[in-house]
Amino acid sequence: MQYDVITLFPGIIEDYCSYSIMKRGVESGIISVNTVNPRDFTHDKHRRVDDTPYGGSSGMVLMAPPVFEAYESIEKLDNSEFIMLTPQGEPYNQKIAKELSSKSQLILLCGRYEGFDERIRLGLHPREISLGDYVLTGGELGALCIMDSVSRHLDGFLNKEESSLNDSFSEELEGRLEHPQYTKPQEYRGMKVPEVLLNGNHAEIAKFRHEQQILRTKIRRPDLME
Amino acid sequence: MQYDVITLFPGIIEDYCSYSIMKRGVESGIISVNTVNPRDFTHDKHRRVDDTPYGGSSGMVLMAPPVFEAYESIEKLDNSEFIMLTPQGEPYNQKIAKELSSKSQLILLCGRYEGFDERIRLGLHPREISLGDYVLTGGELGALCIMDSVSRHLDGFLNKEESSLNDSFSEELEGRLEHPQYTKPQEYRGMKVPEVLLNGNHAEIAKFRHEQQILRTKIRRPDLME
Repeated sequence: MQYDVITLFPGIIEDYCSYSIMKRGVESGIISVNTVNPRDFTHDKHRRVDDTPYGGSSGMVLMAPPVFEAYESIEKLDNSEFIMLTPQGEPYNQKIAKELSSKSQLILLCGRYEGFDERIRLGLHPREISLGDYVLTGGELGALCIMDSVSRHLDGFLNKEESSLNDSFSEELEGRLEHPQYTKPQEYRGMKVPEVLLNGNHAEIAKFRHEQQILRTKIRRPDLME
Repeated sequence: MQYDVITLFPGIIEDYCSYSIMKRGVESGIISVNTVNPRDFTHDKHRRVDDTPYGGSSGMVLMAPPVFEAYESIEKLDNSEFIMLTPQGEPYNQKIAKELSSKSQLILLCGRYEGFDERIRLGLHPREISLGDYVLTGGELGALCIMDSVSRHLDGFLNKEESSLNDSFSEELEGRLEHPQYTKPQEYRGMKVPEVLLNGNHAEIAKFRHEQQILRTKIRRPDLME
């Protein structure tokens, strides 16, 4: 998977990909991360990427030309998808993560300032995705969330054990929350591991976990059960 | 606002806070960012923070003792809130961001591996928050999204212009999406700025923008209009 991120803060993307399994994914060649800075596609001496909005109002709008040129500088692979991170987009979820993992390239456009000049939408037709209904300073955290969650579906990105877990998490997010987990020590500050998890009866353990999942989902996220 | 982040990857948090307005917020003293690594609270020579789950299944579970001790090492201010990032939590949104901005301290617990030993919930009673219905490798991006979106509500964090914009974004996210924005040049690749934005008639501009907001929200996010 080739990720090309159009961002005014390439360091945010590069830094995150230098940790943990993103780093491992880059080193193994399963993912490849490239950044493109619209500021490198300006033609004035101040390297301006934003300007005031027509019609007035406060704030600055990201200009179309440097974004068009940044986008056009990226070599497009077959089966590529172009994504704009914006609170106006479709809300991101695990189903979209799975779907995007079948692509060979994701080009991710991050905004800053008030928003994008509308002609970026009209001319480049990005798929617009929102991380959730909250306001962030830029699209970089959204791009990283997509890169992280999509990569987890790629063959070989996770090891076998991590991978089967990821599948179960995914299913759960589509229908129910995870059951409680316990690890050593068996007793900590007076709190004990439930007896059923210690007796080695697999049928009982499965039943306990299933009941806990249903219960937890009913209490916390009844919307997932519908 | 004091942010204390409990994480196995403190660099992810520190790196993001060295860019853009998070950096400015730290430098001006409006926010303060501290990280605590559970690995520094282990007592074995391998500095183990995770172990296999009781009752079987793949994956590793974050152990209670290093998390308890990491949490307890943090000096608690008055009006502090303790948050666990987990897909099992309440879905994060702008209303929660606003609410959290009234605190003086947020302690943010990030997981890795399969999940948390249940006794972390039972013993430390964190408020559980989910970034959205997708699976991420760890809680760090969630913690950063909270820190970024909460900070934007703090007095003096944004400049006057950014701040009024943030308010309008917030309102919009609670009811409707933003209208299209245009900046220079007036024509780009054959695409022109709508005439109404150029004629200086403020009433007409306001009407145009309002209609565009309603239209866009109806098409993209009818759920927000309810």
